[in-house]
Amino acid sequence: MYRAPVSEISHTLMKVAGLEQALSDNRFPEFSADLAEAILEEAGKFAADRIEPLRVVGDKQGASVKDGVVTTTAGWKELYRDWAAGGWNALTGSPDYGGQGLPMMMSVAVNEMWNSGSLSFAIGPTLTMGAVEALEKHASKELKDIYLPKLISGEWMGTMNLTEPQAGSDLGALRTRAERRDDGTYRIFGQKIFITYGEHDLTENIIHLVLARLPDAPAGTKGISLFLVPKFLVNADGSLGRRNDLFCSGLEHKMGIHASPTCTMIYGDGFVKGEETGAVGYLIGEENRGLNCMFTMMNNARLLVGIQGVGVAEAAYQQALNYARERRQGRAIGVKDGMSPIIEHPDVQRMLLTMKALTQVARSITYACAHAIDMSHVSEGDEARHWADRASLLTPLAKSFATDAGVDVASLGIQIHGGMGFIEETGAAQLLRDARITPIYEGTNGIQAIDLVTRKLPLGNGQHVHGYLDELQADADKAIASNRAELGETGTRLARAIADARAATTWLQQAMADNRLAEALASATPYQRLLSLVAGGAYLARGALADDNAGRAALSRFYAENLLGEVAALKETVLGGATSLAAARSVLEA
Amino acid sequence: MYRAPVSEISHTLMKVAGLEQALSDNRFPEFSADLAEAILEEAGKFAADRIEPLRVVGDKQGASVKDGVVTTTAGWKELYRDWAAGGWNALTGSPDYGGQGLPMMMSVAVNEMWNSGSLSFAIGPTLTMGAVEALEKHASKELKDIYLPKLISGEWMGTMNLTEPQAGSDLGALRTRAERRDDGTYRIFGQKIFITYGEHDLTENIIHLVLARLPDAPAGTKGISLFLVPKFLVNADGSLGRRNDLFCSGLEHKMGIHASPTCTMIYGDGFVKGEETGAVGYLIGEENRGLNCMFTMMNNARLLVGIQGVGVAEAAYQQALNYARERRQGRAIGVKDGMSPIIEHPDVQRMLLTMKALTQVARSITYACAHAIDMSHVSEGDEARHWADRASLLTPLAKSFATDAGVDVASLGIQIHGGMGFIEETGAAQLLRDARITPIYEGTNGIQAIDLVTRKLPLGNGQHVHGYLDELQADADKAIASNRAELGETGTRLARAIADARAATTWLQQAMADNRLAEALASATPYQRLLSLVAGGAYLARGALADDNAGRAALSRFYAENLLGEVAALKETVLGGATSLAAARSVLEA
Repeated sequence: MYRAPVSEISHTLMKVAGLEQALSDNRFPEFSADLAEAILEEAGKFAADRIEPLRVVGDKQGASVKDGVVTTTAGWKELYRDWAAGGWNALTGSPDYGGQGLPMMMSVAVNEMWNSGSLSFAIGPTLTMGAVEALEKHASKELKDIYLPKLISGEWMGTMNLTEPQAGSDLGALRTRAERRDDGTYRIFGQKIFITYGEHDLTENIIHLVLARLPDAPAGTKGISLFLVPKFLVNADGSLGRRNDLFCSGLEHKMGIHASPTCTMIYGDGFVKGEETGAVGYLIGEENRGLNCMFTMMNNARLLVGIQGVGVAEAAYQQALNYARERRQGRAIGVKDGMSPIIEHPDVQRMLLTMKALTQVARSITYACAHAIDMSHVSEGDEARHWADRASLLTPLAKSFATDAGVDVASLGIQIHGGMGFIEETGAAQLLRDARITPIYEGTNGIQAIDLVTRKLPLGNGQHVHGYLDELQADADKAIASNRAELGETGTRLARAIADARAATTWLQQAMADNRLAEALASATPYQRLLSLVAGGAYLARGALADDNAGRAALSRFYAENLLGEVAALKETVLGGATSLAAARSVLEA
Repeated sequence: MYRAPVSEISHTLMKVAGLEQALSDNRFPEFSADLAEAILEEAGKFAADRIEPLRVVGDKQGASVKDGVVTTTAGWKELYRDWAAGGWNALTGSPDYGGQGLPMMMSVAVNEMWNSGSLSFAIGPTLTMGAVEALEKHASKELKDIYLPKLISGEWMGTMNLTEPQAGSDLGALRTRAERRDDGTYRIFGQKIFITYGEHDLTENIIHLVLARLPDAPAGTKGISLFLVPKFLVNADGSLGRRNDLFCSGLEHKMGIHASPTCTMIYGDGFVKGEETGAVGYLIGEENRGLNCMFTMMNNARLLVGIQGVGVAEAAYQQALNYARERRQGRAIGVKDGMSPIIEHPDVQRMLLTMKALTQVARSITYACAHAIDMSHVSEGDEARHWADRASLLTPLAKSFATDAGVDVASLGIQIHGGMGFIEETGAAQLLRDARITPIYEGTNGIQAIDLVTRKLPLGNGQHVHGYLDELQADADKAIASNRAELGETGTRLARAIADARAATTWLQQAMADNRLAEALASATPYQRLLSLVAGGAYLARGALADDNAGRAALSRFYAENLLGEVAALKETVLGGATSLAAARSVLEA
């Protein structure tokens, strides 16, 4: 049923996020609009024809484990093989190791489609991407030469091993142990939980990136190192050697993404008989600097989780739209006979338009973030700093807003299905169950908000965010100046919301400057949503102003006149809510 | 883990919903505050000790069907037996037939507890209550004498058979056929879907209330009749006779409430060999007036679905609160060493307080609705009309706001659990999966909004709702006059929100008067939430002003200064959103 919204995606890339301008400025000389279109078309077909048909069966069958061997859903292995053979895994990898070196924007755009097809499927390669990135940036040439070609081609997959039972949001608490060996390798001992695709049958080898602590490491986050720990050791000629001392001791029974195996991984428990106990690991970067390596890769992982939200939201919107066109109940206003398709009822239209608007806002923010990453790579000096700051600022918005939108849109999708939405066969419920993890993992959305307020608002001496608001204001000004009747009050509503965003931003920066940290943290989540909503309003207007498509103008107006009003309420909460929150602390003692 | 919030429930009944005043006015001479307390205490124990322990196992095992025989989860049968033996089923039934004749408020309060224990369990008796009510009001004495004693004692359970594949929200489309027989009985033929507890092993007989159409009935909703169709025919002496021609052909595979069997029921398909085909049915009320009978019972059913939302929200809040006290991650502001319980983080406090406030608002609205029903029963003339109108006005708010709150609070509960919230063993995910049906069944929340705008705003020549707003304004005035510092800006914020509610109400009434029905319907859902939020603010303030409990004052303030701001945004949407919604219709063609 899913059809990739190629023209909407392309329009967002080109006209909203800034790719058109960047191409015309020759910032990506190897890349072109034609190439982008061709890639989007092909990816759209693969997502619709190959991935989506396995979404529901993946939910029903799920992945299973027996004696440490994980079996994925029937058909999943062939799907992955063909997907990798199509070159999709290699899209952004370094050309030095067989990658296509395409901009992050393209990766984000096709990832949206994979996630619309199946979040459970798409998440696997996302983790490989993260591993590739960490290796490209931080690993020795020796490690790169051995591991990157096969991780980039997709012949092997990668994982991220961070969480332990006592160390979730707080990585400083992790206990997995790494011991030095004389040959420069390490031995890893410990338990990791919630390891996505930690074990599976899609590839012959699995390359784990594991955070662990050396015996003489400082406490907390400054004593964490990052190791590459392959499932099978790799010989000098690239062939597979013996099995490493690690195994999957169990899979989680989850609310959703059943086809994605979520593993408990045990390192160094004597799994391989006749060998020294301890999983062989290779240091990535420097000792005790592991969190640094992980952060570079976590930022992009956060963006890609945001994209999961966009993908699920788009899938839920399309499914609900199709259902609303077909399902007949009640009689629409002015109709004389028979039952009308429920899409004719204003309340259903409101839900569908809300779904569409939230999806497009989430898409715009995530794509703009990807564009900033790309620009930071092709710039130097102050310009590079500017774009890196922009990517940093937008990452928490992309992660939090898009994942919340994924959940909200999927829930509205259920509502439009009525009773059928609660029946699993329909597939609408699965989208909500799948999406519900996305506001949690890769840093809960609450942690994104803390990151936004404490680390992103100070960027550029506190001026970067104001420069961003200036850009959004330019969109509002253009909307007002356009005098397009279709836009209704879009420009003025947006300008008012931007003024609220400015006030909330300044308030938070002042609170931080005054060391009123508790107040700032209490206001962080409302502020994060506020800034995302405002950015979304500007992006929708920007998209509408880019050409004379009446639909985009109408959607921008619908959003400005129906959904953007939340901003004023959020501003009040940011500015005044912390006091009453602190005062109500006693309520939680009862 | 669940502990019934008896003092909060009692306070809401007495001080917020109005029971204290009614008792002091001697409106319920058979009833007393002491009796209420005793009942609440006992119910709380049963819910916590007996029902809640079966919640998770009910989800995991669910109900199953084989050859038309439905088996409920192990332990469920004994649970129901003991629950009925405790007299809980008979709480509100007529004393003429063995009921205790207690006010609806008590039923609502204990139902909250049953639902906190397990929605899947509580929903069964809710349907029996509905059947009892329909029979008490509309059935012949003969039918009452046979069926009411056993339905009131709980020896038999009842069901509601409305939905068919083509007739969900739109009951006028139903096709189940009823044929007259010379002896005054009827034969029923057709298929009903989504029949909750349509078949099970909890009781020896099941009494189905079935909507069907006579051959000569007018089309649409004016041609529907209501029939009593027992699973086993009942002999004159009350003993069970032969099996009736009906059976359960399958159970739905649902997102949640797995322990509640959702049946497809087949009537009149020759299930009983050697007997005339057709399920024997007995008319309730008059021919073609079935929807009328159903509506009286549907109103209370809607209130009781609202209560499901309250129950789930309370359970989710308690579970998240316990988890947040125990789980340690990160270091709270000002703490020097070690990890802090996550409840010390402001963002977690915000989530918990939001959960608590939404739960209490939902509780207040539903209890106020129940109080209005009770008062309408003990009043006469204009006063009875007033209270009946009040119950009518509050029913859509109770159903929609409380069920949305149930979903939102359960989702926040997952978020507080972090990754563990997505793991089914924790039980947090189940609460969201269970709650997700409640905004859908018994009339989707969108249909509640249409009911509110088109049928409830016109009550009392359009004045009833304004009288209600006057009462809420009195709460705001008292909050302002109290000068209690703990209340912060509660009074002024509330007064502003009530003014917005007034403006939105007047706008909608004008739109209806002008025959701008499409605009009114487009604004119905935002208005429904707006009015609920405002009512909630007043109820929280009323509860806080009733005594000097600092916690209630702080919660009222937290709500007024953090959550009530949404009202202003909703007012804008109500007043101006319809135009842009209509303009964006074309977007949905793409």
